[in-house]
Amino acid sequence: MRIDCHGHFTTAPAALGKWRERQIQAFEESGARLSPAELRISDDEITTAIEQGQLKLQLERGTDVALFSPGAGKMAHHYGDEQTSLAWSHVSNDLIARVCGLFPDRFVGVCQLPQSPGEPLAASVRHSAAELQRCVEELGFVGCLLNPDPSDGHWQAPPLTDKVYYPLYEKMVELDVPAMVHVAMSRNPALQGTCAHYLNGDTAAFMQLCTSDLFKDFPTLKFILPHGGGAVPYHWGRYRGFLQDRGLPPLEEAVLGNVYFDTCVYHRRGMQLLVDIVPTRNILFASEMIGAVRGVDPETGHHFDDTGSLLDSLDSLGADDLRAVFGGNALRVFSRLPAVLAARGVTVPAPSTPSATSGQTGTSATTAKESGK
Amino acid sequence: MRIDCHGHFTTAPAALGKWRERQIQAFEESGARLSPAELRISDDEITTAIEQGQLKLQLERGTDVALFSPGAGKMAHHYGDEQTSLAWSHVSNDLIARVCGLFPDRFVGVCQLPQSPGEPLAASVRHSAAELQRCVEELGFVGCLLNPDPSDGHWQAPPLTDKVYYPLYEKMVELDVPAMVHVAMSRNPALQGTCAHYLNGDTAAFMQLCTSDLFKDFPTLKFILPHGGGAVPYHWGRYRGFLQDRGLPPLEEAVLGNVYFDTCVYHRRGMQLLVDIVPTRNILFASEMIGAVRGVDPETGHHFDDTGSLLDSLDSLGADDLRAVFGGNALRVFSRLPAVLAARGVTVPAPSTPSATSGQTGTSATTAKESGK
Repeated sequence: MRIDCHGHFTTAPAALGKWRERQIQAFEESGARLSPAELRISDDEITTAIEQGQLKLQLERGTDVALFSPGAGKMAHHYGDEQTSLAWSHVSNDLIARVCGLFPDRFVGVCQLPQSPGEPLAASVRHSAAELQRCVEELGFVGCLLNPDPSDGHWQAPPLTDKVYYPLYEKMVELDVPAMVHVAMSRNPALQGTCAHYLNGDTAAFMQLCTSDLFKDFPTLKFILPHGGGAVPYHWGRYRGFLQDRGLPPLEEAVLGNVYFDTCVYHRRGMQLLVDIVPTRNILFASEMIGAVRGVDPETGHHFDDTGSLLDSLDSLGADDLRAVFGGNALRVFSRLPAVLAARGVTVPAPSTPSATSGQTGTSATTAKESGK
Repeated sequence: MRIDCHGHFTTAPAALGKWRERQIQAFEESGARLSPAELRISDDEITTAIEQGQLKLQLERGTDVALFSPGAGKMAHHYGDEQTSLAWSHVSNDLIARVCGLFPDRFVGVCQLPQSPGEPLAASVRHSAAELQRCVEELGFVGCLLNPDPSDGHWQAPPLTDKVYYPLYEKMVELDVPAMVHVAMSRNPALQGTCAHYLNGDTAAFMQLCTSDLFKDFPTLKFILPHGGGAVPYHWGRYRGFLQDRGLPPLEEAVLGNVYFDTCVYHRRGMQLLVDIVPTRNILFASEMIGAVRGVDPETGHHFDDTGSLLDSLDSLGADDLRAVFGGNALRVFSRLPAVLAARGVTVPAPSTPSATSGQTGTSATTAKESGK
């Protein structure tokens, strides 16, 4: 079973973007609030957008299910205030729920949170916990997107390990759902979005998590780092050395029980590095489709974001490992997913974990591969 | 010849740090200026710091020459105003010049620039051009460190491609010296320095350069991205796809004639990715020593930052390629270096470039290695 854990509704009907523009404009001009009821999108429009977009590519590539969230860049948490973000989250998440309702065996929801930078941060975290609960309990969602920089490019919030975020983490633990740590747009001309701010957000978040006690406070909290974890696997030795120099616990102990990496890496050697370095049980198939890069790689003949074909092309993953990366890990990390799928009549494979001897399982495997000049 | 193109005087005598503390304190309390003449460090103190620090490790590891700059984090451009940064640059660069004077066959200077964020940016760029000229013409330096975020963690400056930086680039071209793009400290609790802000700075700068016309305006301008280029080689496909989607020139044309990557990647698989992906002629040996990570990797028995041993351990680089990475490329990119070394009685090898058929030379090699599932 192939579960793409990172898809955004980037092809949403134009009415959504127009509603958002009007919302921002009304607030900026007069502080007025635009009602979510003013958004009108028909089922046919949604069906067309999905059938000609994500579903078409899923069928071509053999992806069974996508964990589907609103467009990440469009979350744009810095606009307006926490009420602006709250209404925008309701609108965006309700639209995702409609996609899931129309294609119940193909899409499962992951929600946007009504975060807001600056003074409203604490209030927006409480709203986020409530919106997460609504999406999980009422709409059948299985996770959320958590933006580590609600200022959208100026890094004005405290790290994700700050206690201001704890009400959200308490709710995540209570509901047993993970968060994908995903920045939104960049409004900073120095930080391009998809190829700089996105990757930098992943890298920054990993380092926040490495050097904190967050997972002592929340042992079952789970985060997914998208885009293959930003710079992290490429600089694995830097992180290992940094922690060791300071007498901090090693990565395995510090984060690998709680932090997962998706496979949004768009070339074979990068993907190879990811699976060589990160333990197989910490890797979740994802394509970020339809998203950052949409073209065909002339060097392979595949779409850049056809990460499944890259994974299939690797020699180093055995069949059990591939099954874990493609779906088994997602069914474990998104703990509510098996029941949600089963309730929709989707046959879910029995749980499996990669064998201890195959693939990479942390330091020991790294040792075997890294040592010996 | 082994030339480490990325070393900082992180072991400078304590008097330097105390002068800096007093400088900041005086300015913050009353706007007063501390005179550079108040810093007193003896030749013996410098000699001890170098002989017990960088030189000891260079001798152990077989490094012939280090391109040596002030501590990058300690540049801390956000303190005070542009005069604060100017005095601090004078002090820091003059100390590097003394190191080079005491060990002329071992260290060649790379200068800190008196950048300053916010309103003083334009003035500080003019000061930077003047300080660069002083360091190159009077002190025999061969390059500079250029901070893409003088706000030290909040990214408040325009991208490096902005015309505000052009007076500096005109001077770099006139003097024929490259800049290593290197952030300073992070004062942002969300962005740890060495394992987040440093890497994010490299990634952000690469994307700024990819999507601009800077190198059309300055065809001979050269930048080195430290820390193996942040996230860039790991996400090479993302950059290729992004540029292709937008009809922009490919990486080879956009940046690889002007942008170089150092080898500060602290594990073997990461290093392997770097040399597999980036053309050999764009890679410069570096260790960032003594710097971010100081311990010994228990998996290899080598220091994490002993990047020379990692390069030696790779099978994929032939002898010519290794010579280019270890020194030949540095002698070409730091164009003034051969003459500076020769004037100091150091025998410099004849110029060589990696053969066109060995190593990686851009798209064609990537094609051969990446294609074919």
